[in-house]
Amino acid sequence: MAIRERLSALRALMKDNGLSAYIVPGTDPHASEYMAPHWMEMSWITGFLGETGTAVITADRALLWTDSRYYLQAEAELKGTTVELMRESDIDCPTISEWLKSSYEEGVVGVNPEMYSVNGFNKLRDELADGGLGVKSIDLIRPIWTENRPEIPMTALYEYEDRYAGESVASKLSRVRAALAERRCDAAVVAELDEIGWLLNIRGRDVDYTPCVIAYAVVEKEACTLFINEQKVDAVNAAKLAAKGVTLRGYEEVFPYLNNLHATGVLFDGNRVNEALYEAINPAISRKVNVSPSPLQVMMSVKNEAELDGEREAMKVDAVALTRFFKWLEEEALQTPQTEITLADKLHEFRAMGKNFTDESFGTIAGWNANGAIVHYHAEPGQCAKIEGNGVLLLDSGGQYLDGTTDITRTVWVGDENAIPEQLKHDFTLVLKGHIALAKARFPKGTRGNQLDVLAHQYMWQEGITYGHGTGHGVGHFMGCHEGPANIRTDNNTNPIREGNVFSDEPGIYRAGEYGIRTENLVVTVPAEAGPHSTGETYYEFETITLCFYDKRLMDMSMLTAEEVAWINAYHDKVYKETAPRMNENERAYLADKCKPIEL
Amino acid sequence: MAIRERLSALRALMKDNGLSAYIVPGTDPHASEYMAPHWMEMSWITGFLGETGTAVITADRALLWTDSRYYLQAEAELKGTTVELMRESDIDCPTISEWLKSSYEEGVVGVNPEMYSVNGFNKLRDELADGGLGVKSIDLIRPIWTENRPEIPMTALYEYEDRYAGESVASKLSRVRAALAERRCDAAVVAELDEIGWLLNIRGRDVDYTPCVIAYAVVEKEACTLFINEQKVDAVNAAKLAAKGVTLRGYEEVFPYLNNLHATGVLFDGNRVNEALYEAINPAISRKVNVSPSPLQVMMSVKNEAELDGEREAMKVDAVALTRFFKWLEEEALQTPQTEITLADKLHEFRAMGKNFTDESFGTIAGWNANGAIVHYHAEPGQCAKIEGNGVLLLDSGGQYLDGTTDITRTVWVGDENAIPEQLKHDFTLVLKGHIALAKARFPKGTRGNQLDVLAHQYMWQEGITYGHGTGHGVGHFMGCHEGPANIRTDNNTNPIREGNVFSDEPGIYRAGEYGIRTENLVVTVPAEAGPHSTGETYYEFETITLCFYDKRLMDMSMLTAEEVAWINAYHDKVYKETAPRMNENERAYLADKCKPIEL
Repeated sequence: MAIRERLSALRALMKDNGLSAYIVPGTDPHASEYMAPHWMEMSWITGFLGETGTAVITADRALLWTDSRYYLQAEAELKGTTVELMRESDIDCPTISEWLKSSYEEGVVGVNPEMYSVNGFNKLRDELADGGLGVKSIDLIRPIWTENRPEIPMTALYEYEDRYAGESVASKLSRVRAALAERRCDAAVVAELDEIGWLLNIRGRDVDYTPCVIAYAVVEKEACTLFINEQKVDAVNAAKLAAKGVTLRGYEEVFPYLNNLHATGVLFDGNRVNEALYEAINPAISRKVNVSPSPLQVMMSVKNEAELDGEREAMKVDAVALTRFFKWLEEEALQTPQTEITLADKLHEFRAMGKNFTDESFGTIAGWNANGAIVHYHAEPGQCAKIEGNGVLLLDSGGQYLDGTTDITRTVWVGDENAIPEQLKHDFTLVLKGHIALAKARFPKGTRGNQLDVLAHQYMWQEGITYGHGTGHGVGHFMGCHEGPANIRTDNNTNPIREGNVFSDEPGIYRAGEYGIRTENLVVTVPAEAGPHSTGETYYEFETITLCFYDKRLMDMSMLTAEEVAWINAYHDKVYKETAPRMNENERAYLADKCKPIEL
Repeated sequence: MAIRERLSALRALMKDNGLSAYIVPGTDPHASEYMAPHWMEMSWITGFLGETGTAVITADRALLWTDSRYYLQAEAELKGTTVELMRESDIDCPTISEWLKSSYEEGVVGVNPEMYSVNGFNKLRDELADGGLGVKSIDLIRPIWTENRPEIPMTALYEYEDRYAGESVASKLSRVRAALAERRCDAAVVAELDEIGWLLNIRGRDVDYTPCVIAYAVVEKEACTLFINEQKVDAVNAAKLAAKGVTLRGYEEVFPYLNNLHATGVLFDGNRVNEALYEAINPAISRKVNVSPSPLQVMMSVKNEAELDGEREAMKVDAVALTRFFKWLEEEALQTPQTEITLADKLHEFRAMGKNFTDESFGTIAGWNANGAIVHYHAEPGQCAKIEGNGVLLLDSGGQYLDGTTDITRTVWVGDENAIPEQLKHDFTLVLKGHIALAKARFPKGTRGNQLDVLAHQYMWQEGITYGHGTGHGVGHFMGCHEGPANIRTDNNTNPIREGNVFSDEPGIYRAGEYGIRTENLVVTVPAEAGPHSTGETYYEFETITLCFYDKRLMDMSMLTAEEVAWINAYHDKVYKETAPRMNENERAYLADKCKPIEL
């Protein structure tokens, strides 16, 4: 079917159901960062293959909202489809709700409730109600996307051993049940795949980059039910789960199950549980309790000692791969033609040799010169830059290892050291100073990430420079590379930083058309020793766990303080000591040079 | 009437009205910081004269909730009254709602709706409803407090000239009306006295420290009504107000006026408008729109050029008084016995000599040694400390000048310079480093105070030291010394810092039983010049407007960076240049010594 035929089929159903418009968002039922092709309804109905976008179909128009990163791609892919592009990064572009309200005085807008979080659905409903429009929960894509629709991924579930997870399923369930009781609830609906994997110590390969299995879970006082395609669970794993008190049911059985659930209170995270699940809960027999973040989100973000030990080990393995990559880049790579993609592939090769490596934790961002200034740059074959001449490479990458998840960005100079522009050094050093200031922070229990963010921004802000992304995101443990609920951003976020939280520390500076700089380590929140004259509160500090040198050639020494130099030297000393023993003699010599102390 | 008789009279009325309990908070109808005696209902019914407390009366018990600052005072004052003290700072002390819910299974609790903000009333109602209790709006104190009740203050209203205010009433009204229209409203109720004074360019002497008049105001599309006791407004001022489009009505007429108001939307700030006003608005003819902060709060916090020029001038006058005071303290004071109170009185004397001085902006806090560690310390005759021997004085004070409001804290050593303890110097310097870091901040438009707070805390947090108060509060212009909506605190506050906002910058360290240190200047938010390589946003910085030296004897030079030393020297240079010309030769010599550059 061509896009036009798909649109016609949808419009026929819209008419049958009395809908003025139908919204198709680019989301899935699990609030996932990386989606399975099965759920790419927005792409199917519009032809636009970008990751971010929402389609609105009316009787006579079809529109796609997407942001400026995707304008060129959308223009090309929408050609001939009749779908119009709505450039949502443009200041005068109406939101979907605004557009609908200005287009219709009355009427009903349809949406697939599986594709909306409860809070997202409520927001849409309130906005449209303000303009006299109604919202109807109805899935009109399933009846028409019958041919060639990819199946829901069907990889095998596997057990995530307690020695990696550091906590048994029994212990996690008992903590979740206690948290439910505190909120006068006796059931919880879990839809986010990361949470399900964490809770039940299971993993899979259903989506790229995040080792999760597609499923829903419901935790009750005495029961725990995993709703999953049963073909994914072999007899051994089924028995193991049964022994842990986990009952299996079919993936779609979650809806009738919730419909029949009698509960004093059903707790769900309104930002992560979809509206279809919410609607399935019968208010006559169960009170619905919307709590965001859910207790699971908070528990999952607090890493235990086994998880942290695993992270620290994964970091060493990752560092060896990175060191080998940078050595290769400096000494061998440019003897043959290289592009951003061949570099990323080579880095993957080095990582894949590491113990416990399973996958990348996200698609590598390798940005050469001007491409480094595009924050979400992803090199495409045929369009990517060749690595030629002098320049700067921004390399943001990470690995999934059975014992941990890594995420690191280094910005390095390639070519003649004498050709490094002063402004580049200046920017690199501003970023580094902020990166160090955040890494060195100490703060009392209860502090939020938005209170600490300024430490990373302060030096560049003095010069009127900033960056358009967060300073730090939470990181999962052999799970999602981006995780809540706390983070380090300028935005409001009421979640405090907790002991055991892992964050990235990644300030950057981007010069459009010139280069991008970002320096990123992961840090763990650990207790800080109180000083001899402490006023007595509990304090935390960050332990930097990423172990890879910074490019000293890019540092403007005149901008660094003695304390910063000492910090860099101590860090490089630790990098060498903890990773050199895993390298051969040549690699050690290379690393020793990279880690040699700097002097003011 | 003794307290017991008052309680009996109240209980009789409670019984007549079917109330299980009656709550008497220590508040007034205008969300005021400094209350007129007329409204001290809590003190009248309990005998407790402290500033903070809430009474709950039931058929057989009377209880007073207050915090640890007032435990001793309350114990003494409640003796023989039958009123029991509820120590609300104690961890196991129930809140009022918790206590009521655990004491009654059903019933109705009465409160005077004039004494509750709309949001405070809603919170109480929701909490009690959760336990099956109702709330009834009813004033039971007025019928029984008939003898010796102080009148509502009756000082004359006076015009605050446009040359000080910097904006005409017509301009302010037109901006408020535009802000109302933006929110689809055509009326606003204003209850906070600071807002009324700001809006109508009027002042008075009805309460201590804040030059306001007791009144309500209602702004409509075409009208503006000031509800005020008409005896306060002489013919000249009445005519002036009339010429500005302001109609006068009696203070209590606001209630029937609101009851008859037909409005598309009546906007009010639910944190500052009382429940009685809210209830007076007739929902059948007016939509109620609760917006917090109100547009007036925001406008008032953005000082115009005339206001800022006035502030800068007031700071110079204030600095002369402070310099004279510190000179007197060092050279003459201790030839006769001095106490914390005599020092405060002397400072008042010096301030009162200044041009345009009208009052203190709050009660001076003069804390000698251990008393300095009590954050809200207020010296009382007979109990205050004598200034004897060596020690440290924390002096937090401010003045109301016709052209501006000041608030400054200095911590100074008194006595033998060689006796200064190392720990005291260390703490003083930690505070100073934080104070300077905040003063030097640059940040993009949209930044909130809770993002900047860490700059003041960072050095002491490194050593596990913190303080239990905010870092910075907004400051009014010849009005309240504490003003919203933005501030600089660790707490969540979604209000951004705006150009023209004035804040205090006042970190501190408190060693119970030893000493307290606080260093406070006021700063104005001004545009920052973008650097040559700025990424293009609008940036702000702080201009420090307070002009008084820091005690160099208390600085531990080994802890200061070259940048901090340069900042201190530049500040002292400015202090000298801007204030010395207003002093006599002796004073100038004293100041020159205090402002002499320091060296690392």
